[in-house]
Formats: sequence, C-alpha cells, structure tokens
Amino acid sequence: MMIRPAMAGDEDRIWAIIEPVLRAGETYALPHDWSRDEALAFWLGAPHSAYIAGDGGRMVGTYYLQPNQRGGGDHVANCGYIVAGDAIGRGVARAMCLHSLDEARAKGFRAMQFNSVVASNSRAVALWQALGFATVGTVPGAFRHPALGDVDALVMHRTL
Amino acid sequence: MMIRPAMAGDEDRIWAIIEPVLRAGETYALPHDWSRDEALAFWLGAPHSAYIAGDGGRMVGTYYLQPNQRGGGDHVANCGYIVAGDAIGRGVARAMCLHSLDEARAKGFRAMQFNSVVASNSRAVALWQALGFATVGTVPGAFRHPALGDVDALVMHRTL
Repeated sequence: MMIRPAMAGDEDRIWAIIEPVLRAGETYALPHDWSRDEALAFWLGAPHSAYIAGDGGRMVGTYYLQPNQRGGGDHVANCGYIVAGDAIGRGVARAMCLHSLDEARAKGFRAMQFNSVVASNSRAVALWQALGFATVGTVPGAFRHPALGDVDALVMHRTL
Repeated sequence: MMIRPAMAGDEDRIWAIIEPVLRAGETYALPHDWSRDEALAFWLGAPHSAYIAGDGGRMVGTYYLQPNQRGGGDHVANCGYIVAGDAIGRGVARAMCLHSLDEARAKGFRAMQFNSVVASNSRAVALWQALGFATVGTVPGAFRHPALGDVDALVMHRTL
C-alpha cells in the first residue's frame, strides 16, 4: 500500500471515497448534505494535511491530520480516516492510522486524540484500541445514528 | 445583570475582556498571539452566537454558543465564557452559563458539552459541576499550562 500527501488532481477520487460515508451519516458528525465543494474544502482545507492511500494503482482511502486544538492544545494531533467501501477489511484503515502516527510524530505532535468516535462503529473502536488508543471519555448520546438513534461518542487518545 | 446578544459596536468591549485571557493562555486552547481582528472573527463569527453580560452599565463578561459538532452531532451545544478580570467572583460566569443553558434549550439543543476544560482551572470546574455538568472524559496532558506544564483537559457534559 502506498500512502502519500493528497495533491491537486486527487479531488475526484477523494470525493468518490468520502461522499458515500457523508451521505450515510453513520460514522462522522459532519453534514449529510454537503456538496462536493463543501466536503472537499473541509477535507483538504486548512488546518488539515490530507493524504491518500493507494493499492495497486487504485485509491482505497484518505485521511486528514490536524492539530486537535490551538494554543496550549496544539501538541495533540487529530485525524479522520475514510476507507473506500469496497476496500473495507483489507487493512487500509490500519495502514493509514500507522502512517498518521508517524506523520504526527514527524510534525512534533506528542499525542493523538479522536474527539467523537461513534460507539456503534465497533470496527473502528476495536482498531483504534489495537493501535494503542485508550477510551478516555464517553459522551452519552452525542451522536444521532440514522438507524440506531442516539449513541455514545467516545474520546480516544494515545501518546506518540 | 443583563445578558443580551452581542451587536455591532460591542467589539472594543469584547476585545477588552477576552484579550487578557488569550494572552495569559491559562484557560483556553486558543492562540496567545491572536490579533484583535483574529480573536473577534473567532469569538463573533459563524457558527458562534455571541452574547455579552452587563452589570450597572458596565460590560463584565461575554460568551459564545454553537453546535459542538455538525451532522449527527448538532443536537449538542458548546459554549465558551470569559469574565472581565475585575469582575471575577461576582457570579458573572454562573449567570452567563445559566443564560446559555436557556438559550441552548430555546434553540433546540438537547445537551451541552465542553471539550477542553483545563483541569487546573478549578474555579470553572467547580462551577460547571454545580450547574449540573459531569466530567465524562479526562484527556491526559492535553493542555500546556504556561506555569504548570502539561495538565489534563476535561470533557464535561449535561443534558438540557
């Protein structure tokens, strides 16, 4: 798997990966009805650094890395990852997270924090735990799942 | 105490209240070196609704209210409050928080969440607890306090 910074020209492929996840609204607390331009402005725009993952010439995932807070909180990184629907279960998220941990270290961050991991997204929760993240907070009912109703949002954290 | 939405013309008074707190960098994970325009764009700009608190014709505090997340997370409100240095200890933060809880209910929010309450800010932590907030998360070392070094950041939450 090859992971590199996103570049001009990647927009169509990134949109193809993230649009179904935004529309489904099951895992990200982001607007379901964002246009292509709104979504790409968020995913690729400051303060995000965006990356894409390719496998055999095909793009299978994308993630962004940013400071989780500013000022006295800017030593903690934050990321969001999305895997192409037909590439789920092939280690793409794991590879992207490991890549992001290295990138975050290289940028001088000392920890990584996820603010709102949807508790019903058990595949993600298990993967982050396997990669060293601890659940340091549970916000009751903070996410409205389209099928499950109110579900908890987890705060997950690890040092780098 | 009178609390009302911030209006054009309030900028100088808001800046006078928030500048010392930003510069001190002890309680907010925001840039210490923001200019007046940068700080006011944040405090007063979308998606914030900003308010000011006055006491006897003098402005003693300001707060903002916003959705804490978007999409499936936009039923949870988030606020930030700053009290003028010489008005601390007179119930301004309590009055603003109670006002914000009413405002959030009126806007249809179902809960309120603070993402990064600096644990060393014991006055704030105690006040939020007294007003019904529970600590639902503790992020280790997530805030670099200028005097104390790395301190924990608390996630606090209450339903409305």
